[in-house]
Amino acid sequence: MIFLTRRERFNAAHRLFRKEWSDDKNFEVFGKCSNPNWHGHNYELFVTIKGDTSDETGFVINLKTLSKIVRERIIDKMDHKNLNIDVEFMAGKITTAENIAIAIWNEIEADIKAYDCHLHCVKVVETENNSIEYYG
Amino acid sequence: MIFLTRRERFNAAHRLFRKEWSDDKNFEVFGKCSNPNWHGHNYELFVTIKGDTSDETGFVINLKTLSKIVRERIIDKMDHKNLNIDVEFMAGKITTAENIAIAIWNEIEADIKAYDCHLHCVKVVETENNSIEYYG
Amino acid sequence: MIFLTRRERFNAAHRLFRKEWSDDKNFEVFGKCSNPNWHGHNYELFVTIKGDTSDETGFVINLKTLSKIVRERIIDKMDHKNLNIDVEFMAGKITTAENIAIAIWNEIEADIKAYDCHLHCVKVVETENNSIEYYG
Amino acid sequence: MIFLTRRERFNAAHRLFRKEWSDDKNFEVFGKCSNPNWHGHNYELFVTIKGDTSDETGFVINLKTLSKIVRERIIDKMDHKNLNIDVEFMAGKITTAENIAIAIWNEIEADIKAYDCHLHCVKVVETENNSIEYYG
Amino acid sequence: MIFLTRRERFNAAHRLFRKEWSDDKNFEVFGKCSNPNWHGHNYELFVTIKGDTSDETGFVINLKTLSKIVRERIIDKMDHKNLNIDVEFMAGKITTAENIAIAIWNEIEADIKAYDCHLHCVKVVETENNSIEYYG
Amino acid sequence: MIFLTRRERFNAAHRLFRKEWSDDKNFEVFGKCSNPNWHGHNYELFVTIKGDTSDETGFVINLKTLSKIVRERIIDKMDHKNLNIDVEFMAGKITTAENIAIAIWNEIEADIKAYDCHLHCVKVVETENNSIEYYG
Repeated sequence: MIFLTRRERFNAAHRLFRKEWSDDKNFEVFGKCSNPNWHGHNYELFVTIKGDTSDETGFVINLKTLSKIVRERIIDKMDHKNLNIDVEFMAGKITTAENIAIAIWNEIEADIKAYDCHLHCVKVVETENNSIEYYG
Repeated sequence: MIFLTRRERFNAAHRLFRKEWSDDKNFEVFGKCSNPNWHGHNYELFVTIKGDTSDETGFVINLKTLSKIVRERIIDKMDHKNLNIDVEFMAGKITTAENIAIAIWNEIEADIKAYDCHLHCVKVVETENNSIEYYG
Repeated sequence: MIFLTRRERFNAAHRLFRKEWSDDKNFEVFGKCSNPNWHGHNYELFVTIKGDTSDETGFVINLKTLSKIVRERIIDKMDHKNLNIDVEFMAGKITTAENIAIAIWNEIEADIKAYDCHLHCVKVVETENNSIEYYG
Repeated sequence: MIFLTRRERFNAAHRLFRKEWSDDKNFEVFGKCSNPNWHGHNYELFVTIKGDTSDETGFVINLKTLSKIVRERIIDKMDHKNLNIDVEFMAGKITTAENIAIAIWNEIEADIKAYDCHLHCVKVVETENNSIEYYG
Repeated sequence: MIFLTRRERFNAAHRLFRKEWSDDKNFEVFGKCSNPNWHGHNYELFVTIKGDTSDETGFVINLKTLSKIVRERIIDKMDHKNLNIDVEFMAGKITTAENIAIAIWNEIEADIKAYDCHLHCVKVVETENNSIEYYG
Repeated sequence: MIFLTRRERFNAAHRLFRKEWSDDKNFEVFGKCSNPNWHGHNYELFVTIKGDTSDETGFVINLKTLSKIVRERIIDKMDHKNLNIDVEFMAGKITTAENIAIAIWNEIEADIKAYDCHLHCVKVVETENNSIEYYG
């Protein structure tokens, strides 16, 4: 069993808040991340899959395949977008890195299984100081 | 003459567009950076000042002083903000990294001169692939 | 279950040695790390906690809370210090990255439990080539 | 139980291909990585070992020892080499990062055991976007 | 006047040697870089152009334009190639980072001038420890 | 004319202070950098030399030569040392990054001239946020 990690990136705007809370309450809980006019990040996404290497190719999965899945399912939908408004699979969710990681997992898990691999980890790096890992 | 560089960071949302242009025209020129719902970046700001070292302290400028100027004049106003809406000194400007660098220069130049130093360069890193340097 | 990692940094002096050994013996075992006049590092500290995300906030833990714990318990006591002399919780210990990681774990574990989270990993990066991970 | 990671680097040429396949077939499967005239990478190798810390030294393993093993067994044989031609322990293998990681594991596992430590992970970083981890 | 830098990357094999020299002589001068079976690198290329910002767009040059020039003229020809064999504009040249930087400059200078900008610097990073800058 | 940069690293302890000042006065000016028990850094040193490339080798200077100069003159004397106590060429100087950069310039300038090259820049990176450049 071997683990392969692919990094992709997306630059997006977002805001942490609950609609039903006042701006003051949102600021109290989410701090400056609740700025009503949004802020944003250069997100780094690390997708790790596990599986056995093919005797024929020496690959767990062809990187082109993995990259295509992640780009079509995630990057094309999140890059240069507003995570609260533009991304269907984030609808109704608070756009914390935690929820982003879980949502990405759910979007790509089936596609990766189709290639006889298992999704192992989705890591979302929001800043050089903060990151989230989700293992399903 | 010696050069000292201080890095600070700000995470912000922005959009590249001209009000008087249609969304189509904006998309043609600015591509996905013109997304009407904004996107965002982890900006890195490198401020370089030049001057002579003090015999008494071995400093060109006390880093605490430089950091305080950059934080008060720039980071407090740009971090977790929307560069198009929230930042007074970007008002009416297209928020390209070029214009951000020039605007930052203008905001801090006088303050640095007050400490017998000269602002040498403002570098704005928008992504790991793109950066701007402005020398006044 | 989700994992959140916070990076903090501290710049410190230290020396690897055993008091009861001669300088020669210390040099034989610890090499140049046993320099009697100390040397130092820019340490990077990665604290990983695990838990469930709150439905209300989308957080495992509020990053401000985690950062506050790490800064008060660790960074304020280790940053710009001599790890052998100035840090109470390193007293009597050889200041290897291994022992630093274990000591940091012990300092913060209870505080993190108080927020319904579990400390998962303390990672100490001493140089770009050397790092330690401790999982309790 | 504590985990120590040592990074070493090697710059090497390689080509992904199966001898018995045509150039077209190789290109179809391996893409531009099958260029018959080779290409190359700055590989980063992270070797993680686990064990208990010695009360006497505070070390899991002396870094000099670990570095010596990795350099003699791996770096001296792979650095500035052609992985397909020059490296005995890669003979007959497709030089994917997966196979490189497995081969490196097999080359160093016994040596590390000899120091009362266990090899935990071999990580091979091929580019900033692609990496492999192998846990035996 | 403002400076814009675009990073692109290419992974390539090469060898430092003079045909008319013996392998021993080549090894004496170029060390392990003269390995007859090649080695390789993940090259980073930083292209810096200078010019005035457009009042209409706030750009010195549209990054898509600059990226397109660098990809078509350089990356498509050098990425996953052997710099000694596959790259026409390196023919007959020793493939040091110095000569690579000069050759890249010559390949793209005219194209950039066509957009009312000036090529300012070509930086080639061969490893994390070695880089070359050429200013024409 | 071409510019070549070599990175080397040294891990050292230091303290910013003036002997004739009280601890309070030193703390007022140098802050926590004046801790009497020292602190330390992983310093990165970037030495840039300029010159013409040799037609015979394609080198400005052989990297092995440059690295040897920097290691013998600087790294061997500063790595795993106390910059205030152990380094002769820092004697009597306040060990700011400014003074370190100037001192390193003076130590290596003549040696580099002996190889028909010119020292162009000494850059000292003290932390990821602070660096100094000196051009003679």
